Amino acid sequence: MKKNIKVNAAILIIGNEILSGRTQDTNTNTIALWLNSIGVKVEEVRVIPDIEKVIIATVNELRKVNNYVFTTGGIGPTHDDITAKSISKAFDIDYEIHKEAFKILEAYYKPGEFNEGRQKMVWMPKDAKLILNPTSGAPGFNVKNVFCLPGVPSILKSMLGGLKNEIVGGEPILSQTISLRTVESEIADSLTNVQNKNKDVEIGSYPFFQAGKLGVSIVLRSENQSKIDVCNSQILDFINKKKIEIVDR
Amino acid sequence: MKKNIKVNAAILIIGNEILSGRTQDTNTNTIALWLNSIGVKVEEVRVIPDIEKVIIATVNELRKVNNYVFTTGGIGPTHDDITAKSISKAFDIDYEIHKEAFKILEAYYKPGEFNEGRQKMVWMPKDAKLILNPTSGAPGFNVKNVFCLPGVPSILKSMLGGLKNEIVGGEPILSQTISLRTVESEIADSLTNVQNKNKDVEIGSYPFFQAGKLGVSIVLRSENQSKIDVCNSQILDFINKKKIEIVDR
Repeated sequence: MKKNIKVNAAILIIGNEILSGRTQDTNTNTIALWLNSIGVKVEEVRVIPDIEKVIIATVNELRKVNNYVFTTGGIGPTHDDITAKSISKAFDIDYEIHKEAFKILEAYYKPGEFNEGRQKMVWMPKDAKLILNPTSGAPGFNVKNVFCLPGVPSILKSMLGGLKNEIVGGEPILSQTISLRTVESEIADSLTNVQNKNKDVEIGSYPFFQAGKLGVSIVLRSENQSKIDVCNSQILDFINKKKIEIVDR
Repeated sequence: MKKNIKVNAAILIIGNEILSGRTQDTNTNTIALWLNSIGVKVEEVRVIPDIEKVIIATVNELRKVNNYVFTTGGIGPTHDDITAKSISKAFDIDYEIHKEAFKILEAYYKPGEFNEGRQKMVWMPKDAKLILNPTSGAPGFNVKNVFCLPGVPSILKSMLGGLKNEIVGGEPILSQTISLRTVESEIADSLTNVQNKNKDVEIGSYPFFQAGKLGVSIVLRSENQSKIDVCNSQILDFINKKKIEIVDR
């Protein structure tokens, strides 16, 4: 495992249903939390429609500037499932029946159930590496640094565990949250000072409403715990001076 | 109002907290549903970090290929709120105190409360048009076809109503959903036939789990109700032949 090297990723959500607002995407959050836990920083997320040329162009753009790209959606059996074909074209690889995937689904379904519709799910880029699906049989696939996962959130979640050994992360990104009974404008200047003194720590400030009261969560993120600690103590200093209450959240 | 012309938009979510997985984005869904209802098609969503050069590049890319761009996040009082400055640079417009916004916030806060932190929120691109905020005072702003909204979901929601007259949509995009007690592979071929016969209707197929049972929702989308009706009757034909049950969902 290479450490101390920043490893980044993009998430590409493929699906008209997200763009139309019919479906609330939750896969971004699932994948982002998982990547974060293994030291991969998500640089960008895109949501795009089920249009072949858009998928091809976006995958080709993202895979060149990120260590990893994770796609979700479009790998089922229906006419609007065009991810596998689009990825084949993006890499200029033949789109064909994947023998290993065929065997998996042939064994998964009862005799006679592995019909033409389901057989569409074994068409993939030639020599793609399979991503096993412990929930519903049909595997995802991986070509170079692009990993294609399904859109159904419960199935996607069940497949991430099997991917862990395929992804080489950098130092895990550590974070610490300090939640305060205050409003952002009361701490903005002091927080700016802390950020200026600690350029390597990503400091975020997020207002919240909880039980009818306003608050602010300050989130410190870095690969280096001691840098977070320094930042944290500088923040506690100004909080004490301003007599701001720390709250659980 | 121009009708029968396709009007498109991009949504740009600005915020490290979405990329790290700390926060589940819901603003995309809110904006997408609202745009859909006024005849604006969301072509693309991007989530990007709080980095000035990334914001500038992305806004400049998106605003040239979409009728509208909606940004969320980064317009509060803290150091990580850099949207207004970045948009100023993207358009090469001076970043300065907006007099109207200053008056609004001066009147909104109690005497002495309109401190330096809060005053940051009135720095905007010169001559930006304000987007009024009925919830918490601080307005969003609009420069040409770019509309900048806050990240806090409840505040964002409260501001969309006031934008309605600013956005000129095309024909509203109509949709119809048919939910079936079946699995996608059972209807994939028939649905492909219907799609091939009705190129102008966007047909989506979405598996679901409900009360422990599998089902599929077929979603038909078009600006033209009679085209949806034709599609719908062709789908009902094959559903009847296959004796598939229609379910509520």
